[in-house]
Amino acid sequence: MAHPVDITDPRDPRVDSFRDLTTADRRPDRPGGRGLAIGEGTIVVERMIHSRYAPTALLGVLRRYDELRDALAAIDAPYYRASADVMAEVVGFHLNRGVLAIAPKPRPLDLDDILRDAHTVAVLEGIGDHENLGALFRHAAALQVDAIIVGPRCSDPLYRRAIRVSMGHVLRVPHTTVTDWDVLAGSLDRHGFHTVALTPQEPSVALSAALGAPRIAFLLGAEGPGLSDHALQLASIRARIPMTVGVDSLNVATAGAIAFYERSRERDALATSELA
Amino acid sequence: MAHPVDITDPRDPRVDSFRDLTTADRRPDRPGGRGLAIGEGTIVVERMIHSRYAPTALLGVLRRYDELRDALAAIDAPYYRASADVMAEVVGFHLNRGVLAIAPKPRPLDLDDILRDAHTVAVLEGIGDHENLGALFRHAAALQVDAIIVGPRCSDPLYRRAIRVSMGHVLRVPHTTVTDWDVLAGSLDRHGFHTVALTPQEPSVALSAALGAPRIAFLLGAEGPGLSDHALQLASIRARIPMTVGVDSLNVATAGAIAFYERSRERDALATSELA
Repeated sequence: MAHPVDITDPRDPRVDSFRDLTTADRRPDRPGGRGLAIGEGTIVVERMIHSRYAPTALLGVLRRYDELRDALAAIDAPYYRASADVMAEVVGFHLNRGVLAIAPKPRPLDLDDILRDAHTVAVLEGIGDHENLGALFRHAAALQVDAIIVGPRCSDPLYRRAIRVSMGHVLRVPHTTVTDWDVLAGSLDRHGFHTVALTPQEPSVALSAALGAPRIAFLLGAEGPGLSDHALQLASIRARIPMTVGVDSLNVATAGAIAFYERSRERDALATSELA
Repeated sequence: MAHPVDITDPRDPRVDSFRDLTTADRRPDRPGGRGLAIGEGTIVVERMIHSRYAPTALLGVLRRYDELRDALAAIDAPYYRASADVMAEVVGFHLNRGVLAIAPKPRPLDLDDILRDAHTVAVLEGIGDHENLGALFRHAAALQVDAIIVGPRCSDPLYRRAIRVSMGHVLRVPHTTVTDWDVLAGSLDRHGFHTVALTPQEPSVALSAALGAPRIAFLLGAEGPGLSDHALQLASIRARIPMTVGVDSLNVATAGAIAFYERSRERDALATSELA
């Protein structure tokens, strides 16, 4: 059971791990500058408690402590209770969500372990925007994508804003970071993945005609530049979302959601035909 | 041809329509407090020039004037040229995009005129978030939705941020605001629309089984509360995006994108089978 510790002095060293998060906002590669995953708000903190990122400390207002009581029973960690004002002084800004949890980052998952039992994965390249990263994790969780491989030139999905936008699913969807395309390509190939590059560039087939294989890895690149030539060459097939001529491509998180949806649609159709 | 007018004094009354946009940010119902549509950045301004929201004035740096030269040939309006600093003083903040255009709002389109020739429309309810509104217009443009009906309790899609997030498509996708469900229901019915309420609530059918009708109106509600009972009762059918159990519903703009995608997929399949 997490135990309450009342904090009345914002300078209290026991809450140093929660200090000055705005400064950390300018250093997105280093959450809190302290190598910690940070969850905000009751929904995310609850998910965090039931993930492999078990909080080692929480800071929040009294009301959130009461709301989280059931979930807090599952962990042994201090819950630093403070007024909204004291909390704002520690954190460096007023936090609407009223509760924060921190967890050290556990050892990254092994790529082969992730791929062994997966049917659908997404491989991201050059996704620097934390909102897009977070949204992709949320979409993966909702639409039955088994894992996300954070590939070359992506930001850290464990950054606070990405965790928040993902609604905590960054902490739940298995993922690992691999920055070498050759390592990635070798593993995907060894585990029998059919790689589908999502791109508006021709030549390509319609997304709905590209997803028949039992194991699919979607390659998703940043809006704007799109996938690198390296990534495109690695792909088994290029697929496009049919779009109105002359309209910009969709945002990468939206394109990902559509691809994930098409994949689960395909699987549902297969399951139905196998039953028939 | 738009003609350049150099502005060196930020207090120049000729640029009053561009003044203090941050204040307008706190009054999202009244863009600029002046009843004007405001476009930002070269892509949006170009689209604005070729829309029914023809700019009556522009304010921008020299470089953007040069970049927009071709598009500017199509309109007769002053382009107030200013340094980035003078522009920032007028507008109230530093504007990365370097150019703004304003247009009076034309008379709203007539609902019956919009519906008469449409095959797919989206009807929005309670969408207050300007980013979601803007994203829905962008998705509609990309995925062949003919029009958007801005229904009860939505924010104004002509607000600056919504226009920006939509990449200017708010200015291009036909839309009108109708706040009375009875009026809306009557018109949709009269024009033969099958209304599909997107909702995670049971009972519902899978989205892929709901879109056979020649004319489809999607009903989309705000994330969180979802569609009102009033809207749900109006629907011909309720459709869900199949999702992992226990995961929050998707953001409304993403759910909309998936629905629009499924609809264009359905249409493509029909077109193919008619050819065969």
